[in-house]
This record gives sequence, structure tokens and C-alpha cells, in this order.
Amino acid sequence: MSGNTFGVNFKVTVFGESHGEMIGMVIDGCPAGLDIDLDFIQSELDRRKPGQSKITTQRKEDDHFKIVSGVFEGKTTGTPITGLIENKDQQSRDYSHIQDKFRPSHADYTYDQKYGHRDYRGGGRSSARETAARVMAGAIAKMILKKMNVEIFAYVSKVGKIEMSQKIHEVNPQLIETNIVRCPEEKIAKKMIAHIEEIKSNGDTIGGVVTCQIKNCPIGLGEPVFDKLHADLGKGMLSINAVKGFEYGSGFQGVELKGSEHNDEFFSQDGVIQTKTNHSGGIQGGISNGMDIYFNVAFKPVATIMKSQASVDTEGQQVNVVGKGRHDPCVVPRAVPIVEAMAAITLVDFYLRNKTSQMGDLL
Amino acid sequence: MSGNTFGVNFKVTVFGESHGEMIGMVIDGCPAGLDIDLDFIQSELDRRKPGQSKITTQRKEDDHFKIVSGVFEGKTTGTPITGLIENKDQQSRDYSHIQDKFRPSHADYTYDQKYGHRDYRGGGRSSARETAARVMAGAIAKMILKKMNVEIFAYVSKVGKIEMSQKIHEVNPQLIETNIVRCPEEKIAKKMIAHIEEIKSNGDTIGGVVTCQIKNCPIGLGEPVFDKLHADLGKGMLSINAVKGFEYGSGFQGVELKGSEHNDEFFSQDGVIQTKTNHSGGIQGGISNGMDIYFNVAFKPVATIMKSQASVDTEGQQVNVVGKGRHDPCVVPRAVPIVEAMAAITLVDFYLRNKTSQMGDLL
Amino acid sequence: MSGNTFGVNFKVTVFGESHGEMIGMVIDGCPAGLDIDLDFIQSELDRRKPGQSKITTQRKEDDHFKIVSGVFEGKTTGTPITGLIENKDQQSRDYSHIQDKFRPSHADYTYDQKYGHRDYRGGGRSSARETAARVMAGAIAKMILKKMNVEIFAYVSKVGKIEMSQKIHEVNPQLIETNIVRCPEEKIAKKMIAHIEEIKSNGDTIGGVVTCQIKNCPIGLGEPVFDKLHADLGKGMLSINAVKGFEYGSGFQGVELKGSEHNDEFFSQDGVIQTKTNHSGGIQGGISNGMDIYFNVAFKPVATIMKSQASVDTEGQQVNVVGKGRHDPCVVPRAVPIVEAMAAITLVDFYLRNKTSQMGDLL
Amino acid sequence: MSGNTFGVNFKVTVFGESHGEMIGMVIDGCPAGLDIDLDFIQSELDRRKPGQSKITTQRKEDDHFKIVSGVFEGKTTGTPITGLIENKDQQSRDYSHIQDKFRPSHADYTYDQKYGHRDYRGGGRSSARETAARVMAGAIAKMILKKMNVEIFAYVSKVGKIEMSQKIHEVNPQLIETNIVRCPEEKIAKKMIAHIEEIKSNGDTIGGVVTCQIKNCPIGLGEPVFDKLHADLGKGMLSINAVKGFEYGSGFQGVELKGSEHNDEFFSQDGVIQTKTNHSGGIQGGISNGMDIYFNVAFKPVATIMKSQASVDTEGQQVNVVGKGRHDPCVVPRAVPIVEAMAAITLVDFYLRNKTSQMGDLL
Repeated sequence: MSGNTFGVNFKVTVFGESHGEMIGMVIDGCPAGLDIDLDFIQSELDRRKPGQSKITTQRKEDDHFKIVSGVFEGKTTGTPITGLIENKDQQSRDYSHIQDKFRPSHADYTYDQKYGHRDYRGGGRSSARETAARVMAGAIAKMILKKMNVEIFAYVSKVGKIEMSQKIHEVNPQLIETNIVRCPEEKIAKKMIAHIEEIKSNGDTIGGVVTCQIKNCPIGLGEPVFDKLHADLGKGMLSINAVKGFEYGSGFQGVELKGSEHNDEFFSQDGVIQTKTNHSGGIQGGISNGMDIYFNVAFKPVATIMKSQASVDTEGQQVNVVGKGRHDPCVVPRAVPIVEAMAAITLVDFYLRNKTSQMGDLL
Repeated sequence: MSGNTFGVNFKVTVFGESHGEMIGMVIDGCPAGLDIDLDFIQSELDRRKPGQSKITTQRKEDDHFKIVSGVFEGKTTGTPITGLIENKDQQSRDYSHIQDKFRPSHADYTYDQKYGHRDYRGGGRSSARETAARVMAGAIAKMILKKMNVEIFAYVSKVGKIEMSQKIHEVNPQLIETNIVRCPEEKIAKKMIAHIEEIKSNGDTIGGVVTCQIKNCPIGLGEPVFDKLHADLGKGMLSINAVKGFEYGSGFQGVELKGSEHNDEFFSQDGVIQTKTNHSGGIQGGISNGMDIYFNVAFKPVATIMKSQASVDTEGQQVNVVGKGRHDPCVVPRAVPIVEAMAAITLVDFYLRNKTSQMGDLL
Repeated sequence: MSGNTFGVNFKVTVFGESHGEMIGMVIDGCPAGLDIDLDFIQSELDRRKPGQSKITTQRKEDDHFKIVSGVFEGKTTGTPITGLIENKDQQSRDYSHIQDKFRPSHADYTYDQKYGHRDYRGGGRSSARETAARVMAGAIAKMILKKMNVEIFAYVSKVGKIEMSQKIHEVNPQLIETNIVRCPEEKIAKKMIAHIEEIKSNGDTIGGVVTCQIKNCPIGLGEPVFDKLHADLGKGMLSINAVKGFEYGSGFQGVELKGSEHNDEFFSQDGVIQTKTNHSGGIQGGISNGMDIYFNVAFKPVATIMKSQASVDTEGQQVNVVGKGRHDPCVVPRAVPIVEAMAAITLVDFYLRNKTSQMGDLL
Repeated sequence: MSGNTFGVNFKVTVFGESHGEMIGMVIDGCPAGLDIDLDFIQSELDRRKPGQSKITTQRKEDDHFKIVSGVFEGKTTGTPITGLIENKDQQSRDYSHIQDKFRPSHADYTYDQKYGHRDYRGGGRSSARETAARVMAGAIAKMILKKMNVEIFAYVSKVGKIEMSQKIHEVNPQLIETNIVRCPEEKIAKKMIAHIEEIKSNGDTIGGVVTCQIKNCPIGLGEPVFDKLHADLGKGMLSINAVKGFEYGSGFQGVELKGSEHNDEFFSQDGVIQTKTNHSGGIQGGISNGMDIYFNVAFKPVATIMKSQASVDTEGQQVNVVGKGRHDPCVVPRAVPIVEAMAAITLVDFYLRNKTSQMGDLL
């Protein structure tokens, strides 16, 4: 029950089905007095929207939004901020081919079992369409982070077996938006695009990895022992459609190292305590230490493929299912702004939570 | 603020420092009428306790617990269940050598920055000692799951670069406790033990992976869109000390597959809908589908090593730090029951949350 | 921060300003499979809407709503239910006369101090306009309660010094809607109406009491020690605009009784355990006992009056304020459906929370 | 399920049965760096403890507490603070006379119905014994409020039909502790004491009212629309055993006033905006306005009386019940520190929540 709210002090509630009348979000807990930049919100939505390039779905949705509460004379008022996006083409399509069938590796079967019936149109609530609402909320969170000079950027670091050769600190974030796959290493980006095009031409799909970096994160964010910063970042990422894994800092590779190799020694420069290496990924004991935060998010291949697959219908009878319509051959290029959005929401929530950690801060 | 509670309907709050008077936990929301098996709780604590074998720390703590509320005449009453463990040797040690120093890759620096001061004795709150409280709570959660025939078992699948060759479905859970490293593949277990002994003899440490499997999970657990079952399992695992990554089902490997390879086709046998493959890891759209759930948890090498490392003190001056006392050379053998505990707590919470998903269930 | 959500398992989040584009609500946690009766929702909104009689404000708002998520083919899907009401006349009025002034006993001053600025149009978020969203949510909660034969009805029991002479058990709920003040005692209703008309003609306002009764409440609702049923009912009522007090059962009068007078003796009839008297008001130890629940809610006189009052402006300068436009001379007739709505939301939440109180219920 | 936690940012979880091994509390979210005054905590517990005077129960419990986590070198560390009180005489008494009977107006019947069985010893969890844990938590909250010069004091304003004649602003808080009934109006106190003694000599009990005042409350506390300051104060008070009603400011009397009488006109003196009257009780629109907060809490007569009463047993058979042992003839003198504790906990929680209301506060 009731799993559609994220955050403790900066609480984001999302709603809406893929082909319902609209999707949207409510932020409760946004501080008052923040200037809202509507164009920036739209630009973030545009980075996520379908039909943006030849390697995404060719569906077109403009994803125009409006803010209907919580903002007055361009500034937040401290009351709940509600953003809405109408589903423009909601009534135009035919979903009778999946109404009674469970598409493999989709949520059709589990929603049906859990809730007794389901909105089958375009996947209903289980569609990644809801992530547009997250991007709206994330754009507002980014406006807050901008005031603190916190920088978040994500990019595609792997598609299928093709992965970046650059190390974390070598990445130039300026290059991310220079190509349609959102990989900042140009040579690799080209290979990824070619690979996705080939996959698409076969009616198939492919997985990938999105890497995210956070610079200038204030020290002290994270609330152990359960609400460690990386634990909630992990939950936020794992809650995105198609995600299968999360690792931060040295991650799964780090298990192969010895303590003497993995430990990040401290030093002090100009009065600022830093670490020589950063296997910790900017988080120690669940609390940010001021170094760069970085993490990887694994996305499985999109489940809708243009090939015939065996399945069952709601009566348990054997049927075949073939994908229809226009779908993403690879989800990671459009997932980049979603990963950033969940990171921004999480950081702002922990920033607000950290404002009362010490008596000295209160008085 | 206030990150020491886990769960929504089955809420576990933990408390206590490594060398404070005691650690403990409160479960609020445990259904009434559950028979409490005290011996089982103790046996779970014994699987986690220090000093249990030659490849764990040689520190001895008996970790005797007592339940002081919420149980009457051997049964839960529906009121908060509190379990306490005294820290027996709390006053015997000397921590003056780390009082003013930040140990590399520990939480000393971040706790100090966040809270202004810290209980430095044995790591205080940031010590993995608090996980004993999780194991107590997990033991009670397991008693509930046992009533539903849900089975949870975890094991060490990788130490350093040594990893199991068996596939998920080949594992025999009966063999896990037959060796001290808790790896069910005997040949590999021997190699792991030898490797840890060698690492230990060098005063160093090494990382590893714990794999967890859940069998007979009821269909329907998970509360999209944020509280997906794997998202909260992931958060629970990432909240354990030293964890750097979480993946479920096909995980990070799955990104290399095509949709046509990765999708799990449905079939029906004797009226039960199942999938031919299980790349989904028993969870689709964030909701359990009745197939086996499995996931991996990456643990970094223990930060305390018996070698000299560069660091700074609280004044920012350059110092050296050398580990003292008796520490684990590899944390994963003792992490096995902790992983199981967090899985059990999460499953029970979602089981309770799912009891009101349909009108038909209510009346 | 973030006080716009009510409920634990049946979570209602509300948003919107009096003269913003729209107000609305999201219910997260409504069980799937509930038939949604749109006409019933509208009829509940109509009981609250302005302009409904000569003793309410003469402002006209139609309060048409739409449900934009969570309902498919007429039934709830288990996903968040969102309801919206547009503010039709939002741009037509002039609020320059209060833009820089703090109206006495309104929230102008406190919102301004807390948030730094405020949406002053029609009171913004502090206007009772937001309660329309509560009535929408309450209507859906009532549909669930109807399935369990739980009956909730509220009525005006006091206006100024005029109060009902009937005892709780003498009230005929059929008569509530037979007059515009919503008092089921006809003779008293007439006096109340005449009194409100006189007050109104003087440009003044008057307070009143709404009494609410709940019949056939299931036994066992309430989650001690903090979330006692009456504690959350009380919070829900106190959160309604203009409410100054809450009492249930014997209430403030009960303090004058002796234990021997106040105690409700038990007896059993046809196998049903009941109490001879009901000073407890249907709740013992914070848990419903199956007897009728009843409580009183005190509403202060509406703060907007057509008389000149001393106040200060945002610069702290002395000014005079005179109410403008059309306002309610007495809020209680329109408060009746709001009280019922909050009662319904609270009961459903506790009903869902109680579904996992015993192991026997789970399996 | 799980109603034993109070607060959002300053979260208090309580546990323990009347005759279990111990009762206690965990505070999660207390800022680090607060000096803990153990003597003050004990003095607060002493104000609540049984056996303190001839008009309370003659039972003796010393209520010694210990803090077992979250405090290091006399200061809070920002981690969960746990306080425990052992139940000294837990095994000495005989409760066989109520084991199978439902005492009238106690929680025996409802606990039994809700949970299937109950700890009947001394009322188990439903006993007011748990309020000692609240007083511990409240004492720590008071230490925080003291740093901000916020003053909270409660007193007995009514016993049976005997009530104070002084107005709110005439009360001298120094006199509260000068008599055993905790009424600051000496003449009335004497009458109250005599009345309670008479009631007691008859084996009966009597109700009463506790009034609470809060001075120097910071402006801006309260989180509309649901978490209004008075709504959560009300919930906190209503959650105390035996409470039947809550009113703040003008309360139930206020309903008889006209708006022109009730409104609090603003004026400014020395740059401080104040109100001429204070019918609002220091809270407008759910947010504190800097004026004194005051409220009344109604307590019913204690249910345990030394007279024979009709009841039923767990089989539904008619039985008689007579109170045994030593019980309070009137609960209000001992309720004074409990009311203060819940007020202090609530205020601190809202103080912490308010620290992030404006962007200007963040940076």
C-alpha cells in the first residue's frame, strides 16, 4: 500500500497512468522563496521525452507541463507544489492485443495478481511514463542544488558490451549532450549509436549502464544507520523502471581489492581535508565526505521486442505475444535525466534533513 | 535526522553504540499471537557473533539478548517488542590512539563533521556492532515467514577474486553452514578460507560478495512506484556496513543481453503460471511474481588494517594510523546472517503492506 | 515541512490555493476493485459548496471535479487516485486591499512570518477552500465504509448559544438535510437559522459545534499508544479550518463525574458484548469497542467580518481592515460534510492498519 | 499497526508493559551536542511517580532510569537516545482476579478483541505506566526548549466541579508545585485536595482538567494543512491515558462569541507585532504567532474503583468486578508532567521541522 511517495522532508508524490488523462507530482516540503524557472523544467522534460532522436522510440509526446499550486509570483510559497502533464494521445490507440495477455518481463502479470485487475493501456501505472513526473520534481530539486553549487550529471557509460574507457575523473560533462546517446566519450558514443541502430533494425533491444557524478556535495548528508546516503540513492535508482543494479564508489569491483589498496588515505590541503583516492565514492559510513560522489545504475534491455514470444493469457492458456507500435530499442539515453532527477531529489531531501543535526545549527 | 527506523508496517528501530552500555531494537507492528522461539534468536546471533572461527575477529562477545517487552506467555502481544544486548567488555579497552585521528575509509571524519563530536570508542554508532540488533529483528521476521513456508538463505559467493562456479539453481543450502566461510561449494570454500588466512597473516583485509536466495515468496509483494520490492531490498542491503553494491536477477550482467535473450517467457503448469527463465529474479515491475528471488551484495574490504596509513587528526595535521586489536580480515562470512535478516524484515513488511491491496481481501 | 499528507496506509495528500489554478488530492493506498460512484462524490462536494443557501456565503462555485488517475473502467486500480477541482473565478477578483495587511485572526501574519511571502489572494493556502479536496477524498473513503455498513453522520448541534436539547441517541439522521443549517432538531434548527440571519445582517459572524456519530464501527480500530483512534480523529478534526476543540464520549463534561457514574458496565446479549452506558464514546484504551462513536468539534466564529478592525500592515504600521465580498456568517452548516470526510478518511486508514493485527489474520 | 512512534523529525518511540521487565523510549532525531542533565530527567519522573502524596496511589515505584545509548561524555551524539526504567515489583502481584474478566471502561476488552490475547498484569500495555517513558523523552525535549527560552508549565485547573477562578494570564507558575494537587490557586487547591480525599475514602474516583501554557514560543511553528501546531498538540494530549477532550485558545467557549468579539486585533509595539486579545491561543492558521499558547485537557475519572461493578468474562458470562490494590482516586495531579512532556516533544518536533521553511534559512 501507498508506495508513491519518496523522501522525508522533501516529499515527492507521483501519480498517473500511461494512458490516463494526466500524470503529475506533488512536492510537499519545498522551502519557500525559491525562484521557479519554468523553461528549465521544460528543458529537463525534453531530455526525457520520446521521439527525441533516431535511437529512441519514434512516438511523439510534447510533455508540456503546468504548475497548478505552490508557486506565487514566480516563487515557491512553502505549500505543496503540483505539476501536471496531460497525456495528449491517450485515447487514440488500440491495446486489445495485450488486454488479456501477460507480456514477458513486463509487469502485466504481477499487477494483475496483486490488484485483481489493471489498466492495460500502454502498461498503465507500470509504464515508464510516470518518470516524467519524477523529472519535473527533479528539476525543482536541481534549482535548490544550484544555489549551493552542487552539480549533478549522468551519462551513458555502457550499452550492451560497449563501454567507456575513460575513468570517472576524466569525464567532460560538457560533452554529454553533444550526441544522442549521451555518452561523453565521442568514439565510444558512435559505437553505441551504431549498435543500438543495429539492435533496433532487428526488432530487438539492449541494456546499458548510466553513471552519475555529483560534485560539491556538502559534507554531512546521510542519516545512518538505515538512511545512509548511498542506501537512499540506491533505492531511488532501483525504483526507476528496468533498473537491475546499483553500485557506488568502487562497487562490485571493489570486492577484489585488499584493504590496503582500497582505503582512501586522508590529507589536508589549504585547511580542507580530502582523500588521496576515492574508492569510497564520496560517502563514508553513509555520510557524504565532500569528495565526488559517483555511482552506476544497470538497466536491463527493454522488454517490448518486435519478435514473437511465448506467454500465457489471463486464463493461463498458452499464447504468443509480439510487440506493436514504437518502442525504445535501448532505454539508457532517455534514462539519463531520470537518474539525475532521482539523485537531485534524494540530495535535497538529505540536505534538509541535515539542517538540524547539531544544536549549534538550531539557535 | 532520524534514520534509525526501517519498514512501514513492520517497523524496526535500532539503537546503541559499539561500546555503550547496550544495543537493541524495537519492532512496532509485529502481529500478535506469534510464538517466539528464543533459542532460534540466539542461534541467529551466534552466526553473526565475533570469535566464531579462525577467519573472523578473535574478539569474544557472547551476545546474549533479552526480550523486555511485547511478548507475554511466549507469544507476541501486538505491542512493541524490545530486544536488548549488553556490551559486556565495554569499559575494558583503550581508544586513545584514535580519539583525535580519522581512520582512513572509516566514518570517523564524516560523523565528526556531521555531529560536531563522536563516540570514538570502537567506532561508536558507525561500528557494525549495531547489526546484531538487526539480526534479532530478522530472527523474529523469519519466524513469521516460516509460517508461510518462505525460505531465505544467503551465502558467500565470492572472496577477493575467488568466486563460486555453481549457478543460482545449483546451490545446496544445506551445505552453507558446513564450513566457516559459509560458501556452499566445498572446493571454492576451501580456497576462500586459505585466501582469507593469507590476507590475515599479512595484516590486510579483503572484500567479498554475499548472494541471497528467497524461495516460495508469495506473489504480489512490492508497492510501486517507489517502494518496489527490489528497491527496498536494495536499500536494506546498502544500509549494511561496508556494502558497495546491490544487484538482483540478471543484475549488471543483464545489461549485455538483448531483450530476446533476457525476457522470461511465461508458461502454465498444473494451473501455476511460471517463467521458463528467471532473469527477472522473481520480481517484475517491482512486485514478486512467485519465482525465486535472488540478489548479490558487494562488501568492500574491512577498513581496519594492521599496516601504517597516512591520515589527519582533528586539527588537520598529518598523522599515521595503524590498526590495533583484533579485527575481521574479511567481513562476508559474518555478513551472511545480516543479509538474511534485512531480507526477512523487508519481506515481512511488504507482506503486511500487501494485505490490503484489494477490496476483496478486506471484507 | 511537509504537513499536507494524512493517514498511514490510506494516505491523502492535498494541495492547492484558494485562487490558484486548481485544488486537488491524491489518495495513495486505496484498495483496488472499489467501484467509484462519481455522482456521490459530486453530491458530497455540493453539500460543502458555497452559495448553497441564504445562511452561507453568496459566492458561487460549482466545484466540478475530475478523477485523472487510479480509476480504470469505473474501478480503483490500487494506484494513486487523483482528483482535481478547477478554481473557476480565480482571476476575477481584487485583493489589493489585503495584500499588505494582516487580517485579524486570519493566517496572514503567521504565513508571512513562516514563509517570507504568501499568496494573499483569498487567503491562499490558508483558505478553507482546500477542504473541498478533503471532501473528495472523504467521499471515496465513505464508499469503502459503506461496504462494511459503517455509517457516519454529522450535524450542527450548537450555533452561538443555541444548542440542541436531544441526546445523542435521540437524533434522527434522516432529518439533518431537511434544513439549511443541518440540525436534526427542527425547532432548534429554526432558531439557529434566524440567529445566523441576524448575525449576518449585522455584518458579524458566529461560532458553533458540529457533532458526529459513527455507527457499526468494527471492533479493534486504533493503534495505541500514540495512534489511538480518538487521537487521530481529534487531529483530523483539529486540522479543519476554524476548529478550536475536540471531545469524544463524555468529553469535558465527563470530568465532573465519579468513576462509579462514568464507568460503562459490560453485559452480553445474544452473544454480543455491549456496554450499558456509553460514556466511553465507543472507544476504550484508544481502540473501538463496537458501540457508537460520537464526538463534538468546536468552530470559532469566521474571522472575516464586515466591520472595521484595527490591525497592522507588513511594515508594522497601524491600519484598519474591513471585510470585503461575500463570506459565511457561520461556518458550521458547510463544515458538516468536512467533519464527516475527515472521520471517514481516519476510519478507513485505521481499518486498513488493523488488517494485520493478528497472526491468524495473515495466513 | 505500529502506533508507538510520535513525531516526524524528533521521533519518540516508546515500549513496555506495566509489569514487563522494563519500559523505555528511543528518541531518534535529537540534535547532537545537547548537554544531558540526568538530575532533571529524574526530577521530572519524580513528579509523575506513584506514591508521591496522599491523593495519589500509595503504590511505590522509584522509577530510576538509565540512558544506554546516544549520549557520550554527557552530550547527545545525534544517534538514537535510549532510556530504560526497570519495573521493580513486576513479579510480586496477583492478577488472577482480572485475568479472565473485562474491567469496565478499561482497555481489557478492546485489547483482547484486537490482539486475540493480552498481558493482563496491571493493564499491560494499556496501563498509564508507559507515560513514564514519555516523561523521560519530554525532559530531553525541555532541555532543548530551555536553550530557546521557551517555557512550558501545566497545572490542575479543575477537579470534579471545582475549578479555578483565575484567568490564564493571572496564573503564577511558581505556585504550581507548592501543593500536592498542582493547582496554582491556593484556595482552590485546598478544596480540590479535600474533594479528592473524600472521593478516595468512598472508594471512588473523579475526573479533572489540566491546563497548559507555553510562553516565548518561536513564531512559525506548525505545518498546515494537516500538521497544524494545535492539531498535533491535540493528538499528543488525546493519546494520554484517560483523556477525553482538548481545546486551545477560546476552545468550546469561543463558539458562543461573535467574530467581532473573538477576533484578535493586531498592534505593534517596539517593532513587535502582537495581538490585543488572545482568543487564538497563540496559534493562527495552525502556526504559532508568538503570543502565549494555552490549552485544556479533559481527563475522565480513573476506571478502577473499589466498588462492585457488573461486567462479563472472556466467555461472555456475567461477573462482578471489584478494584483491588492501590489506585489513583484522581489522575490529574500526576498527569501534569505528562501533559508538559507531550507539549515539549511536539514543540521540539515542530521547531526542527520549521528550520527548512525558507530558502533564506538554508544557505
